[in-house]
Amino acid sequence: MQTSFDCLPCFIRQAIDASRVFALDPPLRERIVREVLSWAAEMDFNRPPAIIGGRIHRRLREITGEDDPYREAKSLQNRMALRLLPRLKEEVAGADDPLWMAARLAIAGNLIDLGVNGEFAEEDLLREVHSALSGPFAGPREAFRREVERAESILYLADNAGEIVFDGLLLDRLPPGRVTVAVRGVPVLNDATLAEAEEAGLTGRFEVIENGSDIPGTLLEECSPEFRKRFADADLILAKGQGNFETLSGREEKIIFLFKAKCAVVARRAGVEVGTSVILGTRL
Amino acid sequence: MQTSFDCLPCFIRQAIDASRVFALDPPLRERIVREVLSWAAEMDFNRPPAIIGGRIHRRLREITGEDDPYREAKSLQNRMALRLLPRLKEEVAGADDPLWMAARLAIAGNLIDLGVNGEFAEEDLLREVHSALSGPFAGPREAFRREVERAESILYLADNAGEIVFDGLLLDRLPPGRVTVAVRGVPVLNDATLAEAEEAGLTGRFEVIENGSDIPGTLLEECSPEFRKRFADADLILAKGQGNFETLSGREEKIIFLFKAKCAVVARRAGVEVGTSVILGTRL
Repeated sequence: MQTSFDCLPCFIRQAIDASRVFALDPPLRERIVREVLSWAAEMDFNRPPAIIGGRIHRRLREITGEDDPYREAKSLQNRMALRLLPRLKEEVAGADDPLWMAARLAIAGNLIDLGVNGEFAEEDLLREVHSALSGPFAGPREAFRREVERAESILYLADNAGEIVFDGLLLDRLPPGRVTVAVRGVPVLNDATLAEAEEAGLTGRFEVIENGSDIPGTLLEECSPEFRKRFADADLILAKGQGNFETLSGREEKIIFLFKAKCAVVARRAGVEVGTSVILGTRL
Repeated sequence: MQTSFDCLPCFIRQAIDASRVFALDPPLRERIVREVLSWAAEMDFNRPPAIIGGRIHRRLREITGEDDPYREAKSLQNRMALRLLPRLKEEVAGADDPLWMAARLAIAGNLIDLGVNGEFAEEDLLREVHSALSGPFAGPREAFRREVERAESILYLADNAGEIVFDGLLLDRLPPGRVTVAVRGVPVLNDATLAEAEEAGLTGRFEVIENGSDIPGTLLEECSPEFRKRFADADLILAKGQGNFETLSGREEKIIFLFKAKCAVVARRAGVEVGTSVILGTRL
């Protein structure tokens, strides 16, 4: 999707927030803010906003030599999610439609993002998950099931740490032996990489591949040739999170996006209200 | 005051909003947004944010050849305020402390800003004014009175159209024969110029001078030499609105600011919560 003028304030905020995580001192923080402003001044608004997000983090890694300052937060998010997992598994198993419940929970897992600033009590987190499940939702249940059952090969694009544990619930309900999970190739924000997929217990049960890129989304031209081939060969792509929607919506491949529309620009593009959980396909 | 990173999103919003008023087509709108981003990338953060506001409007006047697209809105704001004036005069006359009531009303007049998008009914507007009077407020009543009574010459820096009608209430309560009113020298946003001071009925009753500048505030180095001399010679400056606070706070002259803190950056600088009406002096 295109970048909106409304994304510009968000770029600045991302630069400031990330500067804090990378523990930049004020002169360096000012430098990165100025750089982001000049990138934005020259940027191609026809390209997705996630590109600037990726560029901010790439630059911060260069400036600081720090590879993954979100590592600890990601691990915390995974641990929080793992503690909930047994109860969530029971809920899926007991649901009228386990596949659909697992898909809804996989989207709800995005709320673990909130956990960056502190450890939630298990009960509080479970309450948040249930509240997410009862929130606004848009998605075609039967078309989703049909596409998932029909696909000989599914490429599942994961999103954040923590959330990737919830993804396990949905992955377990997909046709066995047909699924590959893809994670970011380089740490960016709290996005899941191979390390987080391992922590979440996915590597033992599924083939997990890296996409070769450091964009918080899936920008194919920046992904590895191996990943691009897997992407092209898959019957169906399941793409989690806003970043993947930003970078892949409008493509020709058969992609089903599963995400919560967290900002006005993405919500407008998806045709829903902000805060809506969405299952939306390129060809549904 | 300095420009905060938090001002940057606001610059973008100002450029987009002003593009709409100047009726720019999408390519020109994109051009001005890109220009604002590159100015911001190079700007001196030690200088006040109002500079970028002024520069945006200067550029839009250059691009479009349009001198004052806010003219009609300003006239509407003045007319709305003038309709309320008789009742507000009665309220001041009947108040326990007419000077203080007039000062509070002069600040409340800023809410006419809201009227840009449509004509308010008189009763609705009066309700808004009373609600503004009962909102959060910070200011030293006795020190204000003392400084006003002591000053041999007062330079009153006006702010917006509409609001300038309310300023008349306070101007009438200042020591007669000692007051000069200053307005912007060039139209910018809905700020009051000589035309709006005339509409508000001030020119007949007070000396009204122009500051020679097109900044939505008072940036002395961009004002005319005549204005600068009047500024330096005044015993007391009464400065209305956020723009004047942004550009004049921290100076050595005796200035009393009267404004509503409408954004977090200004509120923090003034030491109050957002939404507070403030009377604050450089030497109070």
